[in-house]
Amino acid sequence: MDYASAGVDIDLEGSAVASLIGALSSSVRRPGTPGAPVDLPGGFGGLIEFGDNLLALATDGVGSKLQIATSLKQWSGVGIDCMAMNVNDLLCVGAEPIAFVDYVAVPKPDPAVHAALGASLAEACRQARVTLAGGETASLPGIVTELDLSGTALGWLPKGEAITGEHLAEGDVLIGLPSSGIHSNGYSLVRRIVEHTGSDYTQPAPFDATHPNRELVRWKDGKTTLGEVVLNPTRIYCDPVVDLLQAARGDAPFTITSIHGICHITGGGLSNLLRLHPSLGWDIHSPLPVLPEFTWLQHAGGVEDREMYRTFNMGMGMVLAVAANEAKDVLAWLQERMTGVAIVGHVTDDGHRVKHALEGVEFTHY
Amino acid sequence: MDYASAGVDIDLEGSAVASLIGALSSSVRRPGTPGAPVDLPGGFGGLIEFGDNLLALATDGVGSKLQIATSLKQWSGVGIDCMAMNVNDLLCVGAEPIAFVDYVAVPKPDPAVHAALGASLAEACRQARVTLAGGETASLPGIVTELDLSGTALGWLPKGEAITGEHLAEGDVLIGLPSSGIHSNGYSLVRRIVEHTGSDYTQPAPFDATHPNRELVRWKDGKTTLGEVVLNPTRIYCDPVVDLLQAARGDAPFTITSIHGICHITGGGLSNLLRLHPSLGWDIHSPLPVLPEFTWLQHAGGVEDREMYRTFNMGMGMVLAVAANEAKDVLAWLQERMTGVAIVGHVTDDGHRVKHALEGVEFTHY
Repeated sequence: MDYASAGVDIDLEGSAVASLIGALSSSVRRPGTPGAPVDLPGGFGGLIEFGDNLLALATDGVGSKLQIATSLKQWSGVGIDCMAMNVNDLLCVGAEPIAFVDYVAVPKPDPAVHAALGASLAEACRQARVTLAGGETASLPGIVTELDLSGTALGWLPKGEAITGEHLAEGDVLIGLPSSGIHSNGYSLVRRIVEHTGSDYTQPAPFDATHPNRELVRWKDGKTTLGEVVLNPTRIYCDPVVDLLQAARGDAPFTITSIHGICHITGGGLSNLLRLHPSLGWDIHSPLPVLPEFTWLQHAGGVEDREMYRTFNMGMGMVLAVAANEAKDVLAWLQERMTGVAIVGHVTDDGHRVKHALEGVEFTHY
Repeated sequence: MDYASAGVDIDLEGSAVASLIGALSSSVRRPGTPGAPVDLPGGFGGLIEFGDNLLALATDGVGSKLQIATSLKQWSGVGIDCMAMNVNDLLCVGAEPIAFVDYVAVPKPDPAVHAALGASLAEACRQARVTLAGGETASLPGIVTELDLSGTALGWLPKGEAITGEHLAEGDVLIGLPSSGIHSNGYSLVRRIVEHTGSDYTQPAPFDATHPNRELVRWKDGKTTLGEVVLNPTRIYCDPVVDLLQAARGDAPFTITSIHGICHITGGGLSNLLRLHPSLGWDIHSPLPVLPEFTWLQHAGGVEDREMYRTFNMGMGMVLAVAANEAKDVLAWLQERMTGVAIVGHVTDDGHRVKHALEGVEFTHY
């Protein structure tokens, strides 16, 4: 199986987005005024000027992971997923997330569902350290057949300190941060495979889901169910990345200029790394351990290695590219704050591609 | 007919939103730090601290107006609708909108539709004077059956200059700004009435739609169609309201402290005014002229006066409450910049209610 056959046409999505962007015009906001756009490669978070600072916006939704949550009536994690998809993008430009707004579309409002969403968003705000500054619930029975949840995060950083990728260089060390599970991408394929195997989300997972790199959020006692594993909330990397950036600007034994790039591994998997620089390459020679659900999904669905790494995070949700001479200190600092952080590879200068320890896992375009 | 019988259960929506809000906890962001929440009555835009300034976020979607646009394959206005719903809310707290992000959910991406959305958003950004700082397109065939479009706007204002309603006083003059049409609320009822009459959106409107207070955006030559009237884009009030606020802080013959309240007339119609102050009342003794589509809808649907003013803007999309001694200057300034601006009433102190020149049109709760 692969992602495309599960019903997701990435090329069509790409050409639709290109059509939209092609129809835009340059901003009326002139350089030096609040809101003027700041160009940045990668495009994780949209940056604008604001006096001596930059502000960053990111907008994203939970996607088809919601369909599993809704089918199981388990929304305790979806607010965290929604928050994570947005604030993790902000971190990539070096921004500190400070506020969030949610957008909920439902065929018909249900106070019980909304209470669950509120609790999930409250926990998400706590984890991401942001203020929930508003939200909208739309009743759209003619447009949505079940819950859709998206959101927008706002972050800031001092002008001149954006992480742009421009300082990336051959030999930079790649530090991988472990994921908590499937996060919020690739669920069309997840659902297809689970359906194919005839597995039941409410039954015990057909594999040992424990892994030292993450904790599973449990809904009830007993054996861990498949649903609990696939709906485990996306990891929010504000802690430790925000603290790392602040420490780097302060009295840490490393400097902010040593952080050359941060990549959120989302849809597109490892190929996301290509967004950080137009010509350098990425050699993942020592990948983080693969979480057990990925191994099971791959086997159950007969999915090729390359397709797995293009669709899923495979155990690594974020990558930092750090100047070689400061990498050891940054690594030690991160390892004190998150289990499973490790050096996974380095930046190369032999072509714009991602290479992985597994043969055949190589990407030359995002 | 009324709004509830058209399928919109406002009470259920209210209790769902209350459930969500009830599950939230107070922000982890402490007063004095970036992102700390700023409490404000009315709740049009969510305000947070940011150094010497405040930032404001607003999030909203186009709603069921999209269903008419999609059925006619006419998306040229929906980006403007989406922008307007958000930036007009920001204006109510005295914020200048500076950036916007869009969220598009579709069952399947279509580059032609996205090109139309991009063109519409580009025009919206021009009218609202904001930077499009990003966006997301989600393919969600299991969740949406047709296009959903929402967005988030970011604005700013100097600390201490938020328009909070706290200075509202008996005798304040209400200045009405004309709407461009139905804007983006009440479309469940619009669709129900049009269906009931057997009218065709592609045929000439069964009434004279011309009115000096607005221009209709035409799609093609010939007689104005019903579709063109009901899909006329929502008016974006950045011009003149942003300029008014800036002039008031500068060399205009009126001061920023004279602007006591700004109200965006959205779902809930005139009852929105009640959100601005907990005890004062609102007497609309000289309403702006009703646009012809409202008169037709009311007659065709047999809708009562009160229901019309609770569901639609009826020709007035925004209201400013201005200190009586400066109202004349503010009025003159606005009239030079927008056709149809007029004094529509004043603030009263005889109970928390909205009274309207039409008998029976009175609201005591939002």
